[in-house]
Amino acid sequence: MRAPDIIMRKRDGHALSAGEIGYMIQGMLTGEVPDYQISAFCMAVFFQGMTPEETTALTMAMADSGRRVDLAAIRGVKIDKHSTGGVGDTTTLVLTPMVAAAGVPVAKMSGRGLGHTGGTLDKLESIPGFRVSLSEREFVDQVNRIGLAVVGQTEDVAPADKRLYALRDVTATVESIPLIASSIISKKLATGADAIVLDVKVGSGAFMHELGKARELALAMVDIGRMAGRRMAALITDMNQPLGQAVGNSLEVIEAIDTLSGRSGGRLLELCFELGARMVVLGGACDGIKDARVILRRLVESGAALAKLKEMVEAQGGDVSCVDDPGRIEVAPLSTLIRAPKDGYVCRADALTLGRAAATMGAGRQRKTDSVDLGCGLRVLVSVGDRVEVGQPVAELFASAQSRLDEGTIEATSAFAYSDAPCQAPPLIYEAVEA
Amino acid sequence: MRAPDIIMRKRDGHALSAGEIGYMIQGMLTGEVPDYQISAFCMAVFFQGMTPEETTALTMAMADSGRRVDLAAIRGVKIDKHSTGGVGDTTTLVLTPMVAAAGVPVAKMSGRGLGHTGGTLDKLESIPGFRVSLSEREFVDQVNRIGLAVVGQTEDVAPADKRLYALRDVTATVESIPLIASSIISKKLATGADAIVLDVKVGSGAFMHELGKARELALAMVDIGRMAGRRMAALITDMNQPLGQAVGNSLEVIEAIDTLSGRSGGRLLELCFELGARMVVLGGACDGIKDARVILRRLVESGAALAKLKEMVEAQGGDVSCVDDPGRIEVAPLSTLIRAPKDGYVCRADALTLGRAAATMGAGRQRKTDSVDLGCGLRVLVSVGDRVEVGQPVAELFASAQSRLDEGTIEATSAFAYSDAPCQAPPLIYEAVEA
Repeated sequence: MRAPDIIMRKRDGHALSAGEIGYMIQGMLTGEVPDYQISAFCMAVFFQGMTPEETTALTMAMADSGRRVDLAAIRGVKIDKHSTGGVGDTTTLVLTPMVAAAGVPVAKMSGRGLGHTGGTLDKLESIPGFRVSLSEREFVDQVNRIGLAVVGQTEDVAPADKRLYALRDVTATVESIPLIASSIISKKLATGADAIVLDVKVGSGAFMHELGKARELALAMVDIGRMAGRRMAALITDMNQPLGQAVGNSLEVIEAIDTLSGRSGGRLLELCFELGARMVVLGGACDGIKDARVILRRLVESGAALAKLKEMVEAQGGDVSCVDDPGRIEVAPLSTLIRAPKDGYVCRADALTLGRAAATMGAGRQRKTDSVDLGCGLRVLVSVGDRVEVGQPVAELFASAQSRLDEGTIEATSAFAYSDAPCQAPPLIYEAVEA
Repeated sequence: MRAPDIIMRKRDGHALSAGEIGYMIQGMLTGEVPDYQISAFCMAVFFQGMTPEETTALTMAMADSGRRVDLAAIRGVKIDKHSTGGVGDTTTLVLTPMVAAAGVPVAKMSGRGLGHTGGTLDKLESIPGFRVSLSEREFVDQVNRIGLAVVGQTEDVAPADKRLYALRDVTATVESIPLIASSIISKKLATGADAIVLDVKVGSGAFMHELGKARELALAMVDIGRMAGRRMAALITDMNQPLGQAVGNSLEVIEAIDTLSGRSGGRLLELCFELGARMVVLGGACDGIKDARVILRRLVESGAALAKLKEMVEAQGGDVSCVDDPGRIEVAPLSTLIRAPKDGYVCRADALTLGRAAATMGAGRQRKTDSVDLGCGLRVLVSVGDRVEVGQPVAELFASAQSRLDEGTIEATSAFAYSDAPCQAPPLIYEAVEA
């Protein structure tokens, strides 16, 4: 096997064998196939695509490139969930306790935020004392004991994916459906879940800007997972406006607790019911999505879901008094309001711009090595389609320094647009890709 | 400027500025743009192509990457000629003396053979004592004195082209018209000619297998040359069968001398008249191609062209007695004949297969560092369309070892096919791209 021949075959539109794909991935790690061949290969894949079989072979090669987390010691169908990344999207914190409370073990590995999108690990760290790094033993034990753990992904999972992603990032080969799909699913396969529910975001604040592309990605990921023997479901959901009200780490944790306490609802809770219901069904605890929704709603109303979150916070060393009184979670000291400049209807509350404004104020990182200011961010007080009056607050901003607050205010103000005529809100869920 | 952005713009089908292209090429040489970005860029160019302006910018960036040979000290319009490479194609040795004898200075830098195609430098070295390495001063002086010099390209000409070609060779990005065109013309611009005549080969033994692709390449090269202020002309010529009879270094030099002496003619001489006439016209020594052909024919008939070759051989230290008596040029000691297996018509004398057979016997090199056995090769004694009788010799093979002769015989035999019905010879010249 020769790398130039394999690149040429892909370049000319042929489907590669699992052996050829494995050769490239293994060769990348051993150095036998240099980076300049891998990047040319990725660009050929960008133009020629991959069949579901090729994408699955690539995913398996990357999943097998490092240690696979062994969740066999956890009883039951282990369920995982993945979002392609959004703004004000704190579903993990809301739905994992719900699903665990419904009796389906959730063993979730999460990531950190980058650019304008947030990450669950950063959010959890706004709870004083919370440990996101557990040993594999602690992780498995905790899931067996309380049915829920959310931790950081260990470094040795799917090293080929890390290496390939770093190369794609600097060679304009990120935006390729088979490469994106295999990158996401390889990590999920390596971290051991039996079933995976995917939340594929589409819109200005998402990685995918067109519904067609989002659908392609969702189908590709569901295909791979099924070929690899996993139970899969996916929703394609809106990311033109932030999902929840809060954008920023502490603010999102507070919103999650408020949501589980019944003090907050809206799109965030609705999407958690939809995603969570699919997790419950795939986990085998219930037959139909409708029934599963009813169960989840009862678990929120009864306080059982909130109690499960509290159990997890306690198990991972966090300050549980924050769950009882989210006012104890620290928010940045300086704040300001953005007000509607006229009477009318909100026709735009742009997710990308609001995500960037929060990052500008300190909530996000531009590079992986940047630190974040957990208390910064903003709350969006209106949704697209809402009627507003002049002077009515549309967003509340929080920062630690006046200059950052000012910058963020300018940026966030530009995220909103108003119209005299009523305008329609985008749907929350565009499509479902079911089993 | 950032390389990933430039790659992305090309990937998405945008035309790049000269500044962006120059940044990539300069960055490749300084190391600021690593090879993995260059190879992804080349693959994007493979799929998206380049405008004539982009191709010219790439060519200029590569031509300017090293030393430009200064031919200003040579009087008159300096003319160069380039063939995209063929089998039994010894036009340089035949036409450069003709053109020089017509009063147009020829300052030619040539290359070595690779794979199944031959190279002028190897051929010239079959004349004992011939020096292909002259200093720039010697080169210029010789052209001023006798109007003709053929030398090897110095190492410091267009280093970016060498670097880029080496990378393309191992990343399946060779077959791209703008990359091929810029590679060829960058060297020609750097070596200082005022006018360039191109011989673009098409057929089994050529780099281009389809007329459409050959035409694209010819037009691309003519465009670049003109944008760079050069006078340009191109012919698209057949390489389905070898051009001349001889394939192999010594054998081709003997054929060149025989052709200039009037002892041999055929396609080789005809193509040299056509290419040479264009060189004479671009060189300003004659207005029309027809008149130029008449002049060149007279220079061959009068012996003036052969005398010019002899002058060059003498000037570059070669044994001139070889020109008077080409029998003195050493040919490999073992030989054999391939004979027609039946009465009929020759319908195939495949250039690629015959080039490979000659290489198998020692006439060619697989890697740049291989040495060649100058005396090996073959003579094709028939042309496509010829009537043959059973037992009639169709080729004569020469090698230094029996095993190689046997291998070459098997290979060369498979190059021929015969039919009962008459079959037509391919045209020698398909098209001309004129000024």
